[in-house]
Amino acid sequence: MASNSPTSPDSTRRSERSRRAIYDAALALVVEIGYPKTTIEGIAARAGVGKQTIYRWWGSKADVLLEAFLDLSEQAARAVPQEPEEREEREEREGRAGEEGQGIPDTGNLAADLRLVLRATVDELRDPRFEAPSRALAAEGVVNEELGRRFVAKLLEPQLQLYVDRLRSAQEAGQVRPDVDPRIALELFVSPLAQRWLQYTGPITYAYTDTLVDYALNGLSPR
Amino acid sequence: MASNSPTSPDSTRRSERSRRAIYDAALALVVEIGYPKTTIEGIAARAGVGKQTIYRWWGSKADVLLEAFLDLSEQAARAVPQEPEEREEREEREGRAGEEGQGIPDTGNLAADLRLVLRATVDELRDPRFEAPSRALAAEGVVNEELGRRFVAKLLEPQLQLYVDRLRSAQEAGQVRPDVDPRIALELFVSPLAQRWLQYTGPITYAYTDTLVDYALNGLSPR
Repeated sequence: MASNSPTSPDSTRRSERSRRAIYDAALALVVEIGYPKTTIEGIAARAGVGKQTIYRWWGSKADVLLEAFLDLSEQAARAVPQEPEEREEREEREGRAGEEGQGIPDTGNLAADLRLVLRATVDELRDPRFEAPSRALAAEGVVNEELGRRFVAKLLEPQLQLYVDRLRSAQEAGQVRPDVDPRIALELFVSPLAQRWLQYTGPITYAYTDTLVDYALNGLSPR
Repeated sequence: MASNSPTSPDSTRRSERSRRAIYDAALALVVEIGYPKTTIEGIAARAGVGKQTIYRWWGSKADVLLEAFLDLSEQAARAVPQEPEEREEREEREGRAGEEGQGIPDTGNLAADLRLVLRATVDELRDPRFEAPSRALAAEGVVNEELGRRFVAKLLEPQLQLYVDRLRSAQEAGQVRPDVDPRIALELFVSPLAQRWLQYTGPITYAYTDTLVDYALNGLSPR
């Protein structure tokens, strides 16, 4: 995905080692000193490359960071067992299947599929490799609307669209009300988890996300 | 509320003018330069008071800011029409009734009451007096767990508890499933709105919050 994005340099034109050093430096700096103080110059110094190397490949620090995040996700997707079945199982468990073009699993049981993907998201939110840089970028997005919107468009919305697809399929199967807008419906289970993570409003557990799926699908009113 | 908190100076011991100047300075600085760079010294200089004046009354910049926010809410609650009925109506509309000890309205129609309070929250989230300082404090809370948790405990959780109370009352009236945990249930309509506001994941409208109430109460699955 990163190598196809318009701001990405052609991978044949750069050394893989420099690219990785730049991503690592960008992620480390945004955690340590925050987004506003992170500069192309600072990333270059920490990565041990000239700043022109970065300017040649990326238009801004935001571009570097967004790609560093996409790369982080891809690294995680690559770091799966070699056994194809295990890999598939793990990708589904980690909710990364969509990054491989497979989307959220569709076993025909919507509740089970949503529970699986949300439990994988719980694991990811607790993964220390992701947590600090994700928080740094999310925090900046709260006060920097332009960055916030880019962050959402590039990183978050593609993941949310996987829920839209799964809910549409459930509508076709008669398991979701036909009048429901899937783009809003997914927020009933995705947003509570996001808010607990962003704002420390409550613990993040599998039991919690399982409960969200139950409440969202079955409603709070008695049936 | 502010005058009863343990970190608040007795209002008889300070000049109202200094207190207001300090709150205004703290809110303005956190918007302009962010939480990390905001200092007691900077607040004092901008407010035109000695920094000892601030240290005498508050333990930290976090204490000043949390109280400045509580004061901002109280100001809004005081700036209501003098006519008691109008005031009551407006407090209900603005979802501030709880700050006056009245909680979320209970007309017996849970959906209508939730729609009313969430529409008032939409208005509040769009109010420019609140937006910039709220974003600055929320952003810092994402990367500063200690501040995030204090922000939630002092400012957010008391508001969420009003929903808990209203949902409990609906459970007693048989309008909400008895097995539902109100503290989780409220997140189905509160968190989506919060995430759209925090992360710019979608537009914030009355139609949107009305839809959230429908989906949360009635569920996504066909009945």
